[in-house]
Amino acid sequence: MRSNFITTILASVLIAGVAGTTIVRAADGVKEAEFTDDGQVMIPAEWRQWVFIGAPLTPNALNDGKAPFPEFHNVYIEPTAFTHWKKTGIFANGTQIAKELVLVRKKDKDEMNADGSTAEVSGVGYFQGEFTGLELTVKDTRRFSEEPGGWAYFSFGHTLPYAKTAKAFPAESCNNCHEAAAAEDFVFTQFYPVLSAAKP
Amino acid sequence: MRSNFITTILASVLIAGVAGTTIVRAADGVKEAEFTDDGQVMIPAEWRQWVFIGAPLTPNALNDGKAPFPEFHNVYIEPTAFTHWKKTGIFANGTQIAKELVLVRKKDKDEMNADGSTAEVSGVGYFQGEFTGLELTVKDTRRFSEEPGGWAYFSFGHTLPYAKTAKAFPAESCNNCHEAAAAEDFVFTQFYPVLSAAKP
Repeated sequence: MRSNFITTILASVLIAGVAGTTIVRAADGVKEAEFTDDGQVMIPAEWRQWVFIGAPLTPNALNDGKAPFPEFHNVYIEPTAFTHWKKTGIFANGTQIAKELVLVRKKDKDEMNADGSTAEVSGVGYFQGEFTGLELTVKDTRRFSEEPGGWAYFSFGHTLPYAKTAKAFPAESCNNCHEAAAAEDFVFTQFYPVLSAAKP
Repeated sequence: MRSNFITTILASVLIAGVAGTTIVRAADGVKEAEFTDDGQVMIPAEWRQWVFIGAPLTPNALNDGKAPFPEFHNVYIEPTAFTHWKKTGIFANGTQIAKELVLVRKKDKDEMNADGSTAEVSGVGYFQGEFTGLELTVKDTRRFSEEPGGWAYFSFGHTLPYAKTAKAFPAESCNNCHEAAAAEDFVFTQFYPVLSAAKP
């Protein structure tokens, strides 16, 4: 009995350790996002400690001064969803992928090149400056049964501190591009080498 | 007694969970790198699941065709060292920071701009392609008492699979730039907004 009792505690702690402080509800061990009663998603805790998968960069200077997503996109997958991806090569129901936008680091005008790059000791290029937005996509074919692939898209705004909750965008505002151009299940895996390398 | 016993087990499990399968040796809970008997560092396990801190990009096309560090630099800090940083704003003895180099994703020549950028559905910019190198720096003022700040620098090479072990570079080959230009304790924190935001 005592040994069973301790085993149960250990298992619970290990699950809690993987999933953070939130209860794991999905049958396959994937931690799901939290939602308010009126269906808004809650901002994830500690998304910057999720598994980084890639950092596309669309500088404002190369996009007529106003990139659709300015400028670095730091993209992360929630760790339990990454574990599932590594095992199966599939984005499980419950998968959360966050995209934090980061402006290119500025210098004095006379040190900025026309393409937005600057010279640092490691070479000419682009370096991360200020955070400027947080977005999230959640795959849940039950909750979002109307959305293509079950993916819903959210933004916590473009000023810090970010909003604590977010409503889902209308499907067509995000998913059209994802459906047309994303390599796998509405996710741009072609830009995320960490995902490609981890796929079984 | 029983409650103490269980508490001890729980604490051990939690520490093991944080540190992976390696024993935590540093007094302050920071997981140290592993070394061979002849002083080479062993390649870390799962560095892509460490805490991502920033992704400088120095495209070859903006660096006379040959950037010193081609091209994206995906930089990570080992999680227990990050926990220490969040508490103290200091890089603890034992801190490990990894830099994985990733080439810009190529397209057909007629779709590549002179600056190395390409157009994708999210805009014109740079997207991550193939992994091309792994480097590591370790702070250990006991093991590397001769090195400025106690930091030693290693490379696991530029072809995959990476080497399993690496010798330290001569101090001057890396640390001169770090000493001259890095914002805090030989680390380029000015390019790592995740570290700046987490600093107490």
